[in-house]
Amino acid sequence: MSKEKPSIPKGTRDFGPAIVVKRNYIFGVIKRTFEKFGYLPLETPAMEQLSVLTGKYGEEGDQLIFKILNSGDFLSKTSAEDIAKGSKHVTRKISEKALRYDLTVPFARFVVMNRNEITFPFKRYQIQPVWRADRPQKGRYREFYQCDADVVGTNSLLCEAEIVQMIDEVLSTLGLKDFTIKINHRGVLAGIAEAIGEKGREADICVAIDKLDKIGAEGVRKELLERGISAEAVSKLEPLYDLAGSNEEKLEQLQALLGETAEGQRGLKDLREVWTYLAQLGSYALTTENPSGQPRLMLDVTLARGLSYYTGCIFEVKVNNVSMGSISGGGRYDNLTGMFGMPGVSGVGFSFGVDRIYDVLEELELFPNSSQVGTRVLIVQFDKESELYALPVLQKLRDAGIAAELYPEAAKLKKQLGYADQKNIPFALLIGSEEMASGKLKLRDMQAGEQRELTIDEIITQLTLSPA
Amino acid sequence: MSKEKPSIPKGTRDFGPAIVVKRNYIFGVIKRTFEKFGYLPLETPAMEQLSVLTGKYGEEGDQLIFKILNSGDFLSKTSAEDIAKGSKHVTRKISEKALRYDLTVPFARFVVMNRNEITFPFKRYQIQPVWRADRPQKGRYREFYQCDADVVGTNSLLCEAEIVQMIDEVLSTLGLKDFTIKINHRGVLAGIAEAIGEKGREADICVAIDKLDKIGAEGVRKELLERGISAEAVSKLEPLYDLAGSNEEKLEQLQALLGETAEGQRGLKDLREVWTYLAQLGSYALTTENPSGQPRLMLDVTLARGLSYYTGCIFEVKVNNVSMGSISGGGRYDNLTGMFGMPGVSGVGFSFGVDRIYDVLEELELFPNSSQVGTRVLIVQFDKESELYALPVLQKLRDAGIAAELYPEAAKLKKQLGYADQKNIPFALLIGSEEMASGKLKLRDMQAGEQRELTIDEIITQLTLSPA
Repeated sequence: MSKEKPSIPKGTRDFGPAIVVKRNYIFGVIKRTFEKFGYLPLETPAMEQLSVLTGKYGEEGDQLIFKILNSGDFLSKTSAEDIAKGSKHVTRKISEKALRYDLTVPFARFVVMNRNEITFPFKRYQIQPVWRADRPQKGRYREFYQCDADVVGTNSLLCEAEIVQMIDEVLSTLGLKDFTIKINHRGVLAGIAEAIGEKGREADICVAIDKLDKIGAEGVRKELLERGISAEAVSKLEPLYDLAGSNEEKLEQLQALLGETAEGQRGLKDLREVWTYLAQLGSYALTTENPSGQPRLMLDVTLARGLSYYTGCIFEVKVNNVSMGSISGGGRYDNLTGMFGMPGVSGVGFSFGVDRIYDVLEELELFPNSSQVGTRVLIVQFDKESELYALPVLQKLRDAGIAAELYPEAAKLKKQLGYADQKNIPFALLIGSEEMASGKLKLRDMQAGEQRELTIDEIITQLTLSPA
Repeated sequence: MSKEKPSIPKGTRDFGPAIVVKRNYIFGVIKRTFEKFGYLPLETPAMEQLSVLTGKYGEEGDQLIFKILNSGDFLSKTSAEDIAKGSKHVTRKISEKALRYDLTVPFARFVVMNRNEITFPFKRYQIQPVWRADRPQKGRYREFYQCDADVVGTNSLLCEAEIVQMIDEVLSTLGLKDFTIKINHRGVLAGIAEAIGEKGREADICVAIDKLDKIGAEGVRKELLERGISAEAVSKLEPLYDLAGSNEEKLEQLQALLGETAEGQRGLKDLREVWTYLAQLGSYALTTENPSGQPRLMLDVTLARGLSYYTGCIFEVKVNNVSMGSISGGGRYDNLTGMFGMPGVSGVGFSFGVDRIYDVLEELELFPNSSQVGTRVLIVQFDKESELYALPVLQKLRDAGIAAELYPEAAKLKKQLGYADQKNIPFALLIGSEEMASGKLKLRDMQAGEQRELTIDEIITQLTLSPA
């Protein structure tokens, strides 16, 4: 047995009780919203066949997949020749399983494996950790949770409208008051490329304008030229960076610009339909005013996001006046399961970045003051006699559904109250000889420092009525 | 990209929505009970340093740990000499991380790493998957959840009494009506060994009598003799297999037998104290009658359970009249963190076997009829006009907190109702031209097949009042 001081792998984290409770609060809000919109939970194993994951995330992604060593005498399948060929070659010989890299490929794999049992449209959400052998740095972990919702098997744009609603509802419920849901469409981007005379070049254009926030218009111009976009096209593109006016006005300006392109038309038609759905649903995102003046929902033609994958509407969410990347995003795709030889499964999905949302709620102090869980009252133990008296009191509290503890030893009062403080227990119950004689127990409000003498029934009433 | 039919690794499982919902129901009951007793959640990373896990589970256990291949050019640290020494030697050169094997070692590691921040007694629960490279077979998985609660830093036997209460409350809340919580004590086992003239041999004795259920008294006798226990000692031992009478009577018989042994005395004293706590708490386990006649709480001196680890009370729970191994178990230990060079951390813990509990609830049909989550009402879509009318209705339902969906396309009625059936949605809402004109919408009870015409407000009232 090693006696060295133990540690955890770089890029991983322990979540102690206080943090788990806060994270679960976020997960709870997200789950309840997903379920209100008809999404149901799916869980897939942490381990996937390596062959299921390989080739799905590009060359670079393949390198970042955590591979699991075969058990037993794994070298028995390798020859000296194999070894000589190097690590990459040997990996396939000594590893058949790997940790999932995201939730999308396992979802696609699940849909393909269960195609005959699934009723479409299939709405699933999935909240599970993923693992990436990335270099750990601030805000980037090797083990972190993803939080995805997807509906596959329908082309209805009601799904896109409901995604806007779900994002709005989750973030509003969490107490955020100033955020912008940016929306764009792959067809609009293709139409723009065509309209500026660079048809089919939208991938290059998007990679460049995706950096607009970071490197500015001048930087984007430089990159576009380097990527072989003509100076004339770039000049035609630039006015789009800050399309003025309301979403409706933007749609009209784009109509004038993209009216002739089939892809542009498709994009604008879809976007208008999403707006119609939202209007008919009375969406709060359409009517809520952000304090910053930024719109709650904004058509943003510079939003590019993962072009290789998405084919229709795309989303991204930014909290205004907080220095933090996007906290949610997603889009529509044509072909979820083609990678496994099952064509024609289209859908739309999005995800929340829980680590970022956590940091935003901390920064804005939006976590509820006292948590929903955790002990509500600690009974202090003075001696064997008070312990004996306290036991049925403890049981009465728990029977009333109140989380309660009796300190398990007759330690010093200071130590016991310190325990309550550390655990954020809002009340302590002190039962000395006087209290036992009178039946009036001392209930101490830990925050206010005040004590009241109450019967156990009065205490139960008070703790049941006061907010958790 | 591979087009072969994808699969999941042997011994792992996908959990589709219906199963996740049922599993979450079990987890929810367990969590609420743990929290009511003051236990708070901890989460540790799936990946631990290999050095943290190695040597903690014995030679055999080390083989069953899933090791993670180092990223990048992992072979660069190995020489031809290393390779020649074989897989076991090479493992240490190409793997530094591994998947956790249980929740106890990560908990011990957490306590050691955070010893200065933790307030003791520290009550934590942890519900997370673990991984074992075991040969998969029926009921044995390579990825499965463990569900542990431990309190460390106190010797109070109140903790043991509360464990009995938590087991009783969880299983009762889940609807189980006939189960037995078996309890024994390491000191009693040591005392028995001494009393029959085989002092210090309790490990051998326990390994043998642990098999009593499987191989019977004759088989146990044979094994004991093979292990070098004298025939005389075995004959003295055998009357203990079926100690008659109530728990109180058993304690008295044991008192007569073990009265002279220090360890036996310690065990009996502890057990009596647990009983005193339970009596004073008014424990239901003491007063509830199992339909089968088996006691709810039973002192069982043949209960042996993981002797190398436990030092005080030990527990195991069996559902009566169901062919299934123990569904919960645990015990007190002296030295949680000694493996990491931190002595003196004693505690007591237990865990629930969620896969087994799931199977028992299925077998006894104890899962609630309709789940707490999932869509409550599906609005059927006939055409564009009905869709337009339905959208604000949908919003009204959701605003009232009712999980609702509008079928996203005007598919055939049969298909839409089939979707509701598949998803176990209890109500369908049909809005045709007549309904739009009158404002009286058709609410169809999917199970009963009955339809009623109601206004949207009446529908909300009904769905809010009727149990989920």
